[in-house]
Amino acid sequence: MNISPLELVREDLKSVEKRMQNFPVPPARLIRESLDHLLAAGGKRLRPTLSLLFGRMLRVPDDPLIDFSASLEMIHTATLVHDDVVDDSPLRRGVPTVNSRLAAGTAILIGDFLFACAAQLAAAAGSLPVMQKFASTLSIIVDGEVRQITKADSTCTLEEYERQIGSKTAALFEVSCEGPALLAQDLPASKQAADYGRAFGMAFQIADDLMDFSGDSTGAGKPVGHDLHQGLLTLPAIFFFHDHPEDPDVAAFQSGKRDPDRLERLVEKIGASEAVELSRKRARHHIEQAVAALVSFPTGDHRSALEALALSIV
Amino acid sequence: MNISPLELVREDLKSVEKRMQNFPVPPARLIRESLDHLLAAGGKRLRPTLSLLFGRMLRVPDDPLIDFSASLEMIHTATLVHDDVVDDSPLRRGVPTVNSRLAAGTAILIGDFLFACAAQLAAAAGSLPVMQKFASTLSIIVDGEVRQITKADSTCTLEEYERQIGSKTAALFEVSCEGPALLAQDLPASKQAADYGRAFGMAFQIADDLMDFSGDSTGAGKPVGHDLHQGLLTLPAIFFFHDHPEDPDVAAFQSGKRDPDRLERLVEKIGASEAVELSRKRARHHIEQAVAALVSFPTGDHRSALEALALSIV
Repeated sequence: MNISPLELVREDLKSVEKRMQNFPVPPARLIRESLDHLLAAGGKRLRPTLSLLFGRMLRVPDDPLIDFSASLEMIHTATLVHDDVVDDSPLRRGVPTVNSRLAAGTAILIGDFLFACAAQLAAAAGSLPVMQKFASTLSIIVDGEVRQITKADSTCTLEEYERQIGSKTAALFEVSCEGPALLAQDLPASKQAADYGRAFGMAFQIADDLMDFSGDSTGAGKPVGHDLHQGLLTLPAIFFFHDHPEDPDVAAFQSGKRDPDRLERLVEKIGASEAVELSRKRARHHIEQAVAALVSFPTGDHRSALEALALSIV
Repeated sequence: MNISPLELVREDLKSVEKRMQNFPVPPARLIRESLDHLLAAGGKRLRPTLSLLFGRMLRVPDDPLIDFSASLEMIHTATLVHDDVVDDSPLRRGVPTVNSRLAAGTAILIGDFLFACAAQLAAAAGSLPVMQKFASTLSIIVDGEVRQITKADSTCTLEEYERQIGSKTAALFEVSCEGPALLAQDLPASKQAADYGRAFGMAFQIADDLMDFSGDSTGAGKPVGHDLHQGLLTLPAIFFFHDHPEDPDVAAFQSGKRDPDRLERLVEKIGASEAVELSRKRARHHIEQAVAALVSFPTGDHRSALEALALSIV
């Protein structure tokens, strides 16, 4: 492949950025400033990138494609704002969160405003099937978050974990890829695109969870072992716990003894264990599924870019 | 008029209630329980009632009308859940709020889930203009709330007040009445219905704000003088402050001295003053506008019911 995936949609991504900053009616100063702050903090814009690649490949007209792609980044941003209030997180992407700079109540309303903007952008794309998919995806994401924070026990199987990340992460990637095919009114393509997006999202979340044990935490802006310290079991821990039920630190964790020294030791053990490679293998399984879902799409730069993006995850 | 407004849509309101309880996918137990709790707490279902009366008058088919009417009550419930978190309110309609029963973070997510349900129901109604109006209304409501909680000074003019309640309350009443006309694809009717709904909402909020000074606080489930204690200036206070700038309690309020005894005395003074009748007069002005907006609709039970509902506000 001669052209990098991002190069292919660079101009479109600029249009997406502009669309996100354009309000039909100017909002309160505080909302405006918060959004500027959130957008300036960056992020990979991965969801709009996928949407644009599918949209261009399927020859979706400019305006609805940009609207829809902007709605994806907006809904993603809205969920991050609320997640940070729920978790009381001070930092995101290395910069102070909305809730750390403003009252929690204000941060809630700013998140709500971003949800409303996301819905406006999705509606502007002018497709009822897209709007319906958009709304149901939002309820899947939130339902998954509620299940996660109200989970009572400290064990988790591979199946439970994949159901969790399926709601939390893969659902939005799914609609990111399926949406452009719905805009193109290409039903068979929409099924294949949804499969690609879902598998991509699963692999992406496993890779993200692996970073929690890799010592390389600069990208996500959160410290190593953060998930486990929060009581959240991700795939490497699930594999390690399964294979080492007799480990005293595992037993201590599961009986609720979670002092920082013990947790730090556990994170190191997991990071040095075969659980890392097992998790990578599971991610690669999803990546293979994503690539396989592309087979019926026209060959060319866009499909190559989608393949390359999937293969770059792990 | 022989038939009461509620009698006309009683069966439809039951269908709305059922639609609100029906999820395409069963949500987490906690969400299910919270929604049951919220719906059981009741409420007047005023927004669906208006929507159903317009919808039946304009012969909108059953399914989209019920979906849309349910989306209105759902979005209203979602905003109440988040408002209660933002204000840290313990009670709503006399029963404990979601945030008083669960962690604030969980209450945020439950509100988000209800927003997602509202968007799903609105999308199910199958009209892009309705969906666009729905999404822009949500952003107007939230923008208004952010402006209200970040308002720096302790003065407020009639114009500012009406802009505030226009966003906070009247916008949702507007779409409640305009939506069915959009579903009927009757553009001239949609303008008139929007005018009725907006004027109705303005009068409704003024009447609600008057209750804060009337001593009759059982309906809203909040104590007399609650708004003023929260630093919120509503119409009776605005009129009183304007006419009595020399009153020592007014001067104290505006300079930030807000001890409970002084506030209680101020609430009593306002409730016994001409500001109450001036506020009622302003509400009646909006009611007249609402009734006037009905003139082009077909005469009959539904139009009579809409007139009677408007006239019953004050």
